[in-house]
Parts: sequence; C-alpha cells; structure tokens
Amino acid sequence: MKMTHYVFATPEEAERAFYDAFQNADLHAMMNIWADREFIECIHPLCDRARGRTAVADSWQEIFSGGLQIQLELSEVHRTQDALLAVHIVYEHLSVPVRDTHYPPVIATNIYQLIDGGWRMVLHHASPTPAEEQHDNDELMPEDGNIQRLH
Amino acid sequence: MKMTHYVFATPEEAERAFYDAFQNADLHAMMNIWADREFIECIHPLCDRARGRTAVADSWQEIFSGGLQIQLELSEVHRTQDALLAVHIVYEHLSVPVRDTHYPPVIATNIYQLIDGGWRMVLHHASPTPAEEQHDNDELMPEDGNIQRLH
Repeated sequence: MKMTHYVFATPEEAERAFYDAFQNADLHAMMNIWADREFIECIHPLCDRARGRTAVADSWQEIFSGGLQIQLELSEVHRTQDALLAVHIVYEHLSVPVRDTHYPPVIATNIYQLIDGGWRMVLHHASPTPAEEQHDNDELMPEDGNIQRLH
Repeated sequence: MKMTHYVFATPEEAERAFYDAFQNADLHAMMNIWADREFIECIHPLCDRARGRTAVADSWQEIFSGGLQIQLELSEVHRTQDALLAVHIVYEHLSVPVRDTHYPPVIATNIYQLIDGGWRMVLHHASPTPAEEQHDNDELMPEDGNIQRLH
C-alpha cells in the first residue's frame, strides 16, 4: 500500500490542511500534518495535554467519532515566524450547518516546525473564550482582521 | 528616574523572571519580560485574548490586584527552540500558602522571541485542565518530569 505523504511548503499550507482535515474529520490527513515526533502536544478545549502521536491521534479520533459535518472559520489570525518555527494564534468559529448551530469561538495557538524540508504541526493549544462574552458579527470582523472561510 | 531594563540571555532566564514576577505580583518586572511589540498576546484561563502592551499590562494588573501571596511551581516543562523563537509548554501549580489552598494545574504555552539581543515573552496562553481530573502527587511527579520550585 502506498502511503501518501504531503510536504507543506509553508506554515500557511500546513494550517490550511489542518483545518481541512479537522472539518472533514479525516484522521489520516490530520495525522499527516502533525510532526512525526514524540514531543508533539495537542490540547483540546478544557482537555488535558495529549503528548506523542498515539495520544494525539486518539484525541482526534474521539472528536471525529461524533460524525457531524462541521464548518470551521478563522478570524484574527496572528502569525509570527522565523526560519524553523511558526506561531499562529487564531479564533476558530465552529458551526454545524445541518443544525444551524454556532458555537462560541475557541482560541487556538498553532505551532509549526520545519522538519526535513516541510512544515509540520507540533502544537495545537485550544481553549474556550469566556462564556459570558458576546461575539457578535462586529467582533468577528475587526478592522484589522478577516474571517477566513476555509471552503 | 532610571528605568532598569533587563536583558535575558536565554528563554529559560526569561521564563524564570516571568514566574518570579507572577509570584511576586510585580507588574513592572512582568512588563519588562514582555516584548515591546504590539503583537504580543496574553490569554489567561477562560479569558479572551489580550493583545498589545496596554491590554496585557491591564490583564496582569487585574490578577495582581487580589493581593494574595501565591506560590507557583512548574512541572512537565517541555521546550522547543530555534534561533529566534522558543516554545515552552508547562503545567503551572498555583497555591496560596497562607490559606493552604492548592488549585488545579493550569496548562500554559509560553513563547519567547529573541529581539535586540535578548529573549522576551511574546505569548502566554493559559487554560484550565479538566476539572474532573485528579492531579495527585503521582501525576505531579511523572517519570520524565520534575516539579521546579521557583523559590
């Protein structure tokens, strides 16, 4: 069996693939984005640290097992990068179109590392925004930011 | 008035100063550790993103206004670094000795950047661990980690 192994030329490419895999509940694609290193860490909202490929894969499998078709949008994407590391801080806006349900935004810090010529994810740290805060359309469209529709 | 401006030779030095300032509720020292850049971001547990020096300083001022003498310990410190960026992921264990109160651990991603010859903080993203999880002494002393007492 031939394994497809994508190489992401930029952190932005890796991030797009990450949110595509998230949205499509595609575990194989998701784990292809994560670095093949045991130091990788994934922290889902209000969850503990999952460290290493097995724990990270298990955490995504659990999320994907829900089976609902979700839609993800990003806003206020803030990027810092040097030669080998890239840090993206974003708001994730998750919705379930079939239910017309929109969830409060999640804050995520995503870190990518250049390994063997390609950018791979090494950290996803996601946490909830304050429940009492209203994130209406004005806040989703700040003067210096844009919602990025993934599809 | 002479302003003391420290230069941190390593991310570890900056991190030690960060948790010292946190523990000592020293706003001046705290803001000395953060980069003098408007892209800095600070996310306290269950709080929204504070961006820029004014918002970050305000967020710490609010935390420090409680006036309680706290103690902070770190465990499972995980570091990734290249020439200009350093990523530390830690558990923070906060307690109030005078009340003999220990709080559930907080997960923090701390990012430092080499700017003008010194390492400065550019991101602190902190979020709660699951409330239902028991973090007893065994978990605080994993085989591959050590609690680091700051003082």
